[in-house]
Amino acid sequence: MAPGIRHIASINDLTNSEIERIFDVADNYLDSLGDPEFKHRIGESTDKAKGRILASLFYEPSTRTRLSFESAMLRLGGQIVTSADPATSSVAKGESLADSVRVVSNYADVIVLRHPRDGAARLAAEYANVPIINGGDGAHEHPTQTLCDLFTLRRENKHLKDLNVAISGDLRGSRTIHSFVYALARFGANIMLMPAKGMELPAHVDARLREEFNCRTVPKEKYQRENSAIDALYVTPDKPHQLSLIPNVDIDEAVDVKLRKKIDVFYVTRFQKERWAQASGDYPKIDAKFLKEAKYAETSVLHPLPRVGELDVSLDSDSRAVYFRQAAYGVPIRMALIDLLIHSKDGLARYDGGFDATGRTLYDRPNSVGMRCANPNCIVHDPLERHYTRNKFWLMAGNEGAQRLRCIYCESDIEEYVVANSKKHEFNVMADGEHTDDTVFFRNEEDARQAGYRDKGKKRA
Amino acid sequence: MAPGIRHIASINDLTNSEIERIFDVADNYLDSLGDPEFKHRIGESTDKAKGRILASLFYEPSTRTRLSFESAMLRLGGQIVTSADPATSSVAKGESLADSVRVVSNYADVIVLRHPRDGAARLAAEYANVPIINGGDGAHEHPTQTLCDLFTLRRENKHLKDLNVAISGDLRGSRTIHSFVYALARFGANIMLMPAKGMELPAHVDARLREEFNCRTVPKEKYQRENSAIDALYVTPDKPHQLSLIPNVDIDEAVDVKLRKKIDVFYVTRFQKERWAQASGDYPKIDAKFLKEAKYAETSVLHPLPRVGELDVSLDSDSRAVYFRQAAYGVPIRMALIDLLIHSKDGLARYDGGFDATGRTLYDRPNSVGMRCANPNCIVHDPLERHYTRNKFWLMAGNEGAQRLRCIYCESDIEEYVVANSKKHEFNVMADGEHTDDTVFFRNEEDARQAGYRDKGKKRA
Amino acid sequence: MAPGIRHIASINDLTNSEIERIFDVADNYLDSLGDPEFKHRIGESTDKAKGRILASLFYEPSTRTRLSFESAMLRLGGQIVTSADPATSSVAKGESLADSVRVVSNYADVIVLRHPRDGAARLAAEYANVPIINGGDGAHEHPTQTLCDLFTLRRENKHLKDLNVAISGDLRGSRTIHSFVYALARFGANIMLMPAKGMELPAHVDARLREEFNCRTVPKEKYQRENSAIDALYVTPDKPHQLSLIPNVDIDEAVDVKLRKKIDVFYVTRFQKERWAQASGDYPKIDAKFLKEAKYAETSVLHPLPRVGELDVSLDSDSRAVYFRQAAYGVPIRMALIDLLIHSKDGLARYDGGFDATGRTLYDRPNSVGMRCANPNCIVHDPLERHYTRNKFWLMAGNEGAQRLRCIYCESDIEEYVVANSKKHEFNVMADGEHTDDTVFFRNEEDARQAGYRDKGKKRA
Repeated sequence: MAPGIRHIASINDLTNSEIERIFDVADNYLDSLGDPEFKHRIGESTDKAKGRILASLFYEPSTRTRLSFESAMLRLGGQIVTSADPATSSVAKGESLADSVRVVSNYADVIVLRHPRDGAARLAAEYANVPIINGGDGAHEHPTQTLCDLFTLRRENKHLKDLNVAISGDLRGSRTIHSFVYALARFGANIMLMPAKGMELPAHVDARLREEFNCRTVPKEKYQRENSAIDALYVTPDKPHQLSLIPNVDIDEAVDVKLRKKIDVFYVTRFQKERWAQASGDYPKIDAKFLKEAKYAETSVLHPLPRVGELDVSLDSDSRAVYFRQAAYGVPIRMALIDLLIHSKDGLARYDGGFDATGRTLYDRPNSVGMRCANPNCIVHDPLERHYTRNKFWLMAGNEGAQRLRCIYCESDIEEYVVANSKKHEFNVMADGEHTDDTVFFRNEEDARQAGYRDKGKKRA
Repeated sequence: MAPGIRHIASINDLTNSEIERIFDVADNYLDSLGDPEFKHRIGESTDKAKGRILASLFYEPSTRTRLSFESAMLRLGGQIVTSADPATSSVAKGESLADSVRVVSNYADVIVLRHPRDGAARLAAEYANVPIINGGDGAHEHPTQTLCDLFTLRRENKHLKDLNVAISGDLRGSRTIHSFVYALARFGANIMLMPAKGMELPAHVDARLREEFNCRTVPKEKYQRENSAIDALYVTPDKPHQLSLIPNVDIDEAVDVKLRKKIDVFYVTRFQKERWAQASGDYPKIDAKFLKEAKYAETSVLHPLPRVGELDVSLDSDSRAVYFRQAAYGVPIRMALIDLLIHSKDGLARYDGGFDATGRTLYDRPNSVGMRCANPNCIVHDPLERHYTRNKFWLMAGNEGAQRLRCIYCESDIEEYVVANSKKHEFNVMADGEHTDDTVFFRNEEDARQAGYRDKGKKRA
Repeated sequence: MAPGIRHIASINDLTNSEIERIFDVADNYLDSLGDPEFKHRIGESTDKAKGRILASLFYEPSTRTRLSFESAMLRLGGQIVTSADPATSSVAKGESLADSVRVVSNYADVIVLRHPRDGAARLAAEYANVPIINGGDGAHEHPTQTLCDLFTLRRENKHLKDLNVAISGDLRGSRTIHSFVYALARFGANIMLMPAKGMELPAHVDARLREEFNCRTVPKEKYQRENSAIDALYVTPDKPHQLSLIPNVDIDEAVDVKLRKKIDVFYVTRFQKERWAQASGDYPKIDAKFLKEAKYAETSVLHPLPRVGELDVSLDSDSRAVYFRQAAYGVPIRMALIDLLIHSKDGLARYDGGFDATGRTLYDRPNSVGMRCANPNCIVHDPLERHYTRNKFWLMAGNEGAQRLRCIYCESDIEEYVVANSKKHEFNVMADGEHTDDTVFFRNEEDARQAGYRDKGKKRA
């Protein structure tokens, strides 16, 4: 990874203050429009990206993400080069993503990447010499969509803190949702999940909401009579760490107050057919009838689009529908992000680092040594990238004190593993957290034995 | 449809005076070239589109239409974003055209659309917030190709009125031809059709030429001895409505004079393999031998390109071949059109409305109610658009006083239908033209009965 | 071919002094960068291509060639239009390359072409009205890659003359290699070939190195003890024509000196899977182990990229690896080339003609008459181009005085053929070189007889 270059692989690569700064800049772009007929003049007043080139590297279909980035770059006075079809790019010849971004770094000043593999943007960031912006990587994250979503909420609701946000649909396959819930938690919103059957939030996303972003999950009996559709509910403590210090027994008065509020936002997502074989029969369909309850009377309805049936067209003329405004904000938001990224060296913007990653320890071994990421769609399992990835995990403090490993690429977690010593060729050698340069992790004892290791008998806690 | 925004879905969305204005502007662009070596300087002297973005939305293959639009936009000082492959766009995820153009309206100031369905451009115009230009929709129309064709005729022949224009090939599947014959009729040219076997002009195009644009068809015995290859011949009266008032019995002296003239223009089209399964065996092939008759001695040979065998390469060096000049005019013509469209709000151009549509009545029902368009390739039958289209027909006065319905999207006609009353649940309720808000049309009595309607016995005239 | 327009179909369309001029311009672009952080400012200081448009016409997959050309054009202040996918272009409708480039000439000021057929760029140059740059045509040539390669050698080694350059891999299918070896010979480098089994340099490339560029092949016994991996070795005489005058018996002292030198450059190429069904089992793989011999201690390792396994990733951090710098030079080199091409008319650059083609005689017959090119992948055999190509051969003086025919498109050679007279309908009519306007060539006597010719009995020498 080239030093001093800023990449946006996750929404958590931006601090809250940076996100708010992006919103302020986007507000300025929008305000300078005035008369909507003058929207085309956005570019005329700015030359923020003059002489710079944005490269779109898209390994998956896209219209709105790619075109909105390209439009944003042009409105900033910059230029674009595009590779939107894997079949007509060097990937058709078998080139790795790592080599591709290294080469394209020579042709552009910033790269937007979309890729079918979880963690692809983080891998690209390790090899690129210009900023990488994640335009969606597998089922992992889609941070710039989240910037548009949050910005929409701020403009519609004037605040983010304490918003009640319901989220419906494919919460497992939708990368958009993963970035979104982190951001909601970080800005103090309450998250009400209404997943399609079998499409609940991934376990590692749930764990991060609770452990890293201090969300408190509310027991179902607390809300299920009033909101039977809600499958999980996360509230954010008014003071950081306040609730997380209390054991999982009771919910204080503040939470009850939050729950009595109406639903401020209803966020609908499509079934991610490209990540799943097929949908189960009962994918939720949101229409005017669904939203007729009193608690939805003033709800803002959002959708990242495209929609494929889960959001009824009859809602389009409903005053609660804000999804087309949400789409319209894509250009000013991405203008603001590009502006800040390409000027982060020139002193016009000084990013002060991503969301807190201090205190984590990095485990970094060649990909032939020990355990690999357990997520089969992680970029480390892409055959083209096998020479460009390593077995890299963050050592995370788990829920009950037990340690958890987080893949640095796709950010999925591994809780069950065996600790070994590569020098002594022994496994079950030490308790959690007592690691040295010789530590190697295995998936299980069988794998360790296969690798020629002897059992030392000191199992993890 | 956003008010005050001008769309070009059909050549008939432009008045004759607007078309002539576009030609004057294009002439200026060409004249300013002077030395052909300086063609690249077109853009240097104009900043007509500075700060504006053109989006190419192409759902079908194209080289010349897309690249000539994009080149035109760049030569005007504007910028471009491109989505040229349905497989790598949001349509691959199942997004409707209606949603796509609504979203892309945020990224661009004008959209050029190509789509395999008839009437797609009209549907897009209903949802876009920026001007839609039809870059070819199914077998319906291709108005900007017609602008190039007419402009070529004007430059080659100095006039359009009374030109004898022969048209050869696939007149049924070629959208180019449909726009072209309307324009020829409107500018007073005579149209001599030489279709490939089974590829005659669609019935509704023929009807419009005769009924709407006042063409007079000439009986075959009048010309077949001299021009046996001609299958149908339309002459335009010297004074509007002059001939159309005379019953279909005789042809006056003026027509004989027109017929004795030589062929001024020979327009060749390729077989539209993307619209038909396969060509019949005898597709016409035009070569020097074919054109050796005296009447072709000074004929301008045009072709919209690409050609695939129907126009012999040996003609390329023939002085009558103007098809490469015709292609070259694509950029200045599209510069003029874009220029006028994006400035139609700023007072630089004031379009005064499309070709006369006054006097038509609109029938507009939900797509679940009554009869749908009978054209199976109409955009209303695209599964992705089913929630975005309605059953909308213009009520047209037919040939013998009988009423005809014209789909507002694909402009194909329906002559046979049943009139019903949705309130009383009765069909065969009234004569042509006596419609109310409760009127519903059905394809036939069987369909009306299936929908639970009772026969009232009052059939259409 | 439009007069006065310069095309780059082969590296031999540029003289040595022109190539050096391109390098000087590229050096200037690079030097003006200074701080690498300012690379994005290349474009700000130049408006060399303002108002000009580059069209990318790519009929085969590409990332680096297309994006580096487009980036170069934008950095020069110009604009781009792109057709990168045959499936979404007019070729899907069956349009010929000849017609396509003729039409696209109206939309752009320079065209970069990539095509799967050998000789496609030369055909395009015959029909285009703007400069054609060959971005790779089949297995024929890739001249701009060679410009990057040579420029890399000059910057790494400070000189080209007498460099010892080893080349490994698929020397038969790699168009990059063919342009490269011509250029190496012309600049006085020594060429050491290490082909994969069955992938030796094509015979006509070998012949040109020896006959046209004055290379001397060295007998294997001279070097095989020290360099058993080398399959063929070409040395360039210190004085032009010096060695070529000596019969193929001995090698002078100068050659021995050259051979004792270390390997200066190791050029690795991938297996061209798109040109071959499959690789044999023993494709060479270059890694640190391979390069551990003393003669490689200071070798620059180059690769045109993409790589697909033949160049080990572990080398990336080796100081001898220069392939990523090589890729980075793509933009300034192409800026210099475009700059010179588009200004060749305005006096800013005066090209003085390509590599010496004087003394050649052109044989030019319709493609229905006599022998066609023997290379099945030559553009003349593309069904779409059958009406746009002729049987055109350069009459070349062969090795032993015997005449050889070189296809003007793909530059492959034919040594065995029969000379006939089309007027007298006789074959075996005359000795090599005694040709008239009535001369026709046939592949063999059988073909001549089939065409109705009589044997005159006067066979070629």
